[in-house]
Amino acid sequence: MSLIIIGTVAFDAIETPFGKTDKIVGGAATYASLAASYFYKKVKIVGVVGDDFHQADIDTFTTHGIDTEGLQVKEGEKSFFWSGKYHNDMNSRDTLATELNVLADFDPIIPESYQDCEFLMLGNLTPKIQQTVIKRLKNRPKLVVLDTMNFWMDVAMDDLLETLKLVDVLTINDEEARQLSGEYSLVKASKKILTMGPKYLIIKKGEHGALLFHEDQIFSAPALPLAEVFDPTGAGDTFAGGFIGYLAKVGTVNFNNMKNAIIFGSALASFCVEKFGTEKIVNLTDEEVAARVQQFVNLSTFTIEA
Amino acid sequence: MSLIIIGTVAFDAIETPFGKTDKIVGGAATYASLAASYFYKKVKIVGVVGDDFHQADIDTFTTHGIDTEGLQVKEGEKSFFWSGKYHNDMNSRDTLATELNVLADFDPIIPESYQDCEFLMLGNLTPKIQQTVIKRLKNRPKLVVLDTMNFWMDVAMDDLLETLKLVDVLTINDEEARQLSGEYSLVKASKKILTMGPKYLIIKKGEHGALLFHEDQIFSAPALPLAEVFDPTGAGDTFAGGFIGYLAKVGTVNFNNMKNAIIFGSALASFCVEKFGTEKIVNLTDEEVAARVQQFVNLSTFTIEA
Repeated sequence: MSLIIIGTVAFDAIETPFGKTDKIVGGAATYASLAASYFYKKVKIVGVVGDDFHQADIDTFTTHGIDTEGLQVKEGEKSFFWSGKYHNDMNSRDTLATELNVLADFDPIIPESYQDCEFLMLGNLTPKIQQTVIKRLKNRPKLVVLDTMNFWMDVAMDDLLETLKLVDVLTINDEEARQLSGEYSLVKASKKILTMGPKYLIIKKGEHGALLFHEDQIFSAPALPLAEVFDPTGAGDTFAGGFIGYLAKVGTVNFNNMKNAIIFGSALASFCVEKFGTEKIVNLTDEEVAARVQQFVNLSTFTIEA
Repeated sequence: MSLIIIGTVAFDAIETPFGKTDKIVGGAATYASLAASYFYKKVKIVGVVGDDFHQADIDTFTTHGIDTEGLQVKEGEKSFFWSGKYHNDMNSRDTLATELNVLADFDPIIPESYQDCEFLMLGNLTPKIQQTVIKRLKNRPKLVVLDTMNFWMDVAMDDLLETLKLVDVLTINDEEARQLSGEYSLVKASKKILTMGPKYLIIKKGEHGALLFHEDQIFSAPALPLAEVFDPTGAGDTFAGGFIGYLAKVGTVNFNNMKNAIIFGSALASFCVEKFGTEKIVNLTDEEVAARVQQFVNLSTFTIEA
């Protein structure tokens, strides 16, 4: 039994109204695996880095109990690099640089020791590579979660639609749900998307929370209102990692557990944005996580008397 | 004991992507009093109309048990008229016409029979008139709720700030909260606004629900995801009316009751947008309202096991 998380492991340089960073460790698989590690102890990462990714960076995974056998290190090459600058409202950003480097010809390797995978998180990558990972697993996992973005809808929609047929849960934001479905109403969008393959759709709305759709059921999760969003980078990946990590922990996939998984994912994401990059989510205690989850409970609980 | 609702009683002509109306009855006090009437039986309206407002229009109030003694009818004058056209996303609209008519020199009359007022809803109007109503009540009501909009922040901020000192609850949308406070973060905005007079702040976020702030407590209420928003006109007023109507019914003002009041207000507002104008909210059964409230419960309930 294990949880495989595939995605970018990379360097980011981030500028927000609060400051800027040099190259710091980032990438979808980094955020997601760290988040998942708070709930589940058998997290295994699949990705690729260059030799500019140092042992100390890999140690960060290892100290969280994350298996890095599937993380290829390409000698003489450089890691994927992204640089971006957030605007004042933190809801929009400019990409300043994207250097694919090792990612350009990434061919994911699934070590034999990973073949016990029951939960699979496909972080944002080309749909083709996401699909390859599913096909390289000898047994179909119990749950496959896919994260993607508008970019792949623009340049690789056919591949994406084919990959969607193979997954159980899709996580996208509201604009992406509208683009993928061609429907403005999120209710109508969800109905269309749930015919494309996924049985569950999570629409991430950032500061407005998240919606979970499954058959005729809808769950609306709040976002924690924050005095300051310091750096939103990685929040979506952290959410997805916390989400699937919690589900891997409880083991049973159903609507009720998914609801809780969204709350746990949202709690982790709310920590993520409090500092630059992974700074906050590398050093959380179980007590901090539990207290944050309790804040979500307090935030959204009401009792209507009949 | 009674609930007074003051605000516009008017004619609207509305165009949405789904169709358009001739002049239909609208206005903040119309929506709010109809919504409140589903929860509380002693709703009393204060407003002004012209003689183009027919007995049949007034009868709509009366059949809902709404007292219209405080609704002045000006012979030889015309009612306030607003016309607007919504864009495809329904989140923005163009005002096509605003004819103040009787509203231009509106001087609210509080009939003696209204002096038993315990709950007061000040619908969107000039802050000066809102203030006048408070001062014309011999006893300070148990709860005063004020709704306002960005327009008054632009043209009458000083009057608004003075009026805010006299109220318990302020309902505004997120952009208005940012404008009033000068803070982008809604958490920071709420802290500033809660020093201006109101002890409770409700930030309406439309399709993203609502936030209630009080001291250090926050409640996040979901919005019901709808397949179609047919006409958003009056949704905010319907919300406010349902909110104060529910509080008037339970009688006790505290954070827990406010949370429920927001759910009941949201439920009524979710009906309002399903048809043009007041068409949907004039004909609801208690069963429909209860079922809709249950949808809100289902939408947002989760159970985290410790």
